[in-house]
Amino acid sequence: MNNFIYDIPVKVYFGENQLCHLGEELSKYGKRVLMTYGGGSIKKIGLYDEVVAEIKKAGLELFELSGIEPNPRIDSVRKGAEICKNENIDVLLAVGGGSTLDATKFMAAGAMVDHDPWDFLSSKWAPIEKALPIVTILTLSATGSEMDCGGVITNPETNDKIGRMERPMLPKASFLNPANTYTVSPYQTACGAADMMSHIIEVYFNKENDLYMLDCFMEGMMKTIIKYAPIAMKEPENYEARANLMWASSWAINGFVNGGKEHSWSCHPMEHELSAFYDITHGLGLAILTPRWLEYCLDDSTVSKYYQFGVNVFGIDGSLDKMAVAKKSIEMLSDFFFNSLKLKSTLSAIDIDDTHFETMAEKAVEIGGLKYAYKPLDKTDVRNIYKMCL
Amino acid sequence: MNNFIYDIPVKVYFGENQLCHLGEELSKYGKRVLMTYGGGSIKKIGLYDEVVAEIKKAGLELFELSGIEPNPRIDSVRKGAEICKNENIDVLLAVGGGSTLDATKFMAAGAMVDHDPWDFLSSKWAPIEKALPIVTILTLSATGSEMDCGGVITNPETNDKIGRMERPMLPKASFLNPANTYTVSPYQTACGAADMMSHIIEVYFNKENDLYMLDCFMEGMMKTIIKYAPIAMKEPENYEARANLMWASSWAINGFVNGGKEHSWSCHPMEHELSAFYDITHGLGLAILTPRWLEYCLDDSTVSKYYQFGVNVFGIDGSLDKMAVAKKSIEMLSDFFFNSLKLKSTLSAIDIDDTHFETMAEKAVEIGGLKYAYKPLDKTDVRNIYKMCL
Repeated sequence: MNNFIYDIPVKVYFGENQLCHLGEELSKYGKRVLMTYGGGSIKKIGLYDEVVAEIKKAGLELFELSGIEPNPRIDSVRKGAEICKNENIDVLLAVGGGSTLDATKFMAAGAMVDHDPWDFLSSKWAPIEKALPIVTILTLSATGSEMDCGGVITNPETNDKIGRMERPMLPKASFLNPANTYTVSPYQTACGAADMMSHIIEVYFNKENDLYMLDCFMEGMMKTIIKYAPIAMKEPENYEARANLMWASSWAINGFVNGGKEHSWSCHPMEHELSAFYDITHGLGLAILTPRWLEYCLDDSTVSKYYQFGVNVFGIDGSLDKMAVAKKSIEMLSDFFFNSLKLKSTLSAIDIDDTHFETMAEKAVEIGGLKYAYKPLDKTDVRNIYKMCL
Repeated sequence: MNNFIYDIPVKVYFGENQLCHLGEELSKYGKRVLMTYGGGSIKKIGLYDEVVAEIKKAGLELFELSGIEPNPRIDSVRKGAEICKNENIDVLLAVGGGSTLDATKFMAAGAMVDHDPWDFLSSKWAPIEKALPIVTILTLSATGSEMDCGGVITNPETNDKIGRMERPMLPKASFLNPANTYTVSPYQTACGAADMMSHIIEVYFNKENDLYMLDCFMEGMMKTIIKYAPIAMKEPENYEARANLMWASSWAINGFVNGGKEHSWSCHPMEHELSAFYDITHGLGLAILTPRWLEYCLDDSTVSKYYQFGVNVFGIDGSLDKMAVAKKSIEMLSDFFFNSLKLKSTLSAIDIDDTHFETMAEKAVEIGGLKYAYKPLDKTDVRNIYKMCL
């Protein structure tokens, strides 16, 4: 069992009508606020007006950057960093889902340096030693960006989609109002749920000797997602469902369940290549990849964990043969992704063929650290897994 | 479902050989450190020498207060607060179990005021607006004091044992090394486990509409305690068992699983009177009280939660009649406390009779907020529950 340092000081305002605390949180850091957001959805749901009213009430000066895209681009980051420098911004307020939050994190870091923000993610891997303070208002339960210090940025010129976690980019405070996710479509709700499931599965499946308590927590989170994602898809204004998904999104990836485990993730690096080349929704790519990856890694040395997963998460009869339970657990996960969540189940179904598998596999291994994964994967392994997804 | 604010910025160094970070943590707050501890156990296990060496290495000035007793007394708090004032202490370092940590919290608060620290706990309820910074090194898994802002202090002159939670008393950092609990006796290990179980049960049994995810976490923690406490009693140097118990102790009561629930606790106020009058170990009192309290509160309006508890924590067959599962769950909890943990099962067995039941019931209701509990309890209810424990 590895040592670890637990240190998650993000303050979370959870529930409805908590924006009355927004002014006080932002004011801790100064007067000049850059608010970042995506398309117009925050205007449609009235959140934009609410936020602006709170900022004005607190006597703060508001700057805006809208248009941050899904799979956020480095160009948006560059724009935001420029505004921060030119306008002497004191604090960033990201209003949106993971894409807006991720882009904002790198703007906050970019504001503190003279070089191009892409240098943080390119092979230069420029240090991220400081960042402007960040406050977030979440509108989509998925990436967990509201409570972690990571982000993933796409560079369309180079077909790169690269993630990085650095402490200075950790939000100071996050506002999580489940009602702000009522208008998230069934499809995006499903993709968010798949993303959360993947965050947990990437940590849950490991060979290290762990804290049993954290396994229990991860199983509880997976059961929560399996229970509530289909409800939220059918009843978009079901507060209980939206609340459970929202709080699960934060805890799936804020580092707590990790408890010292150090192995690299598997499906995320493979998916980042899919999104980089085809701009698909991250959660959809993960849903397609995860069951195939599990199938690929199942053998006598890994079967016990699959068995635990099957019995504790899906309630499969534990008296059955271990390998049978393991295989059944993969089936049930597929059933969740492709029947309950109604996500497309193959790459072919979303018009992706094997054209770039070679390059994608190479990049996934090179950038993603796959040789340090649960089951170490090389280029051939990754290509095989991509092929299983066709 | 209630709103809540999640805000637990305590930094935790978990595992062995983490004391190398002690100097850096203490130095954040100044040069003059008051180290508090109980009897000599930290000297026996070599921890005292390690801590002193780290403090010296960091060039800090060390002051000491030892002799903090179990069920810590207000006199110890007074002494500590005096030292802080006289010696211009910058930071307190509590090394021990919940008693040492709790006393130290009120010393840290007492250092900032001119009045007697008992005024914080007496009917005066003096405000606690600031406190000196506190760092802890935990040697007993039980109270969760290492990650919460509460403490319980006894005043033997008035037979009072009173708790209070106030934000300024939250530790800045805590060092949790499971190996520091290897010498905890089987009996104290059992009492600690009973205390943790009770912390969870006090929150788990409630009538509010909650976050399912948090119920899953609480069930996971209870299963963790049930699994590992007997192992730690039999194999005191089993790192895995000690580690799971230690991390569970923090999460059982740091506020996370509460998620906005506001009802008052039940068994803790009743137990505080037992400890105040008879100076028994807190966890033992809780083990005796909890199954009787559950029995007393079981009826058609509460049975569903008991059923969930029985099925998810003890694996009782869910196809059985709900009330039968509920009763069986209480039996299995009793079996855990009195057979697996080998704790005495009645008040008579620890020489407590009904002499003070009347007064104790009155005080528990008056001080403990029992009328706002899961099932509201008045003086007669509490007396009845005490009688069931005889």
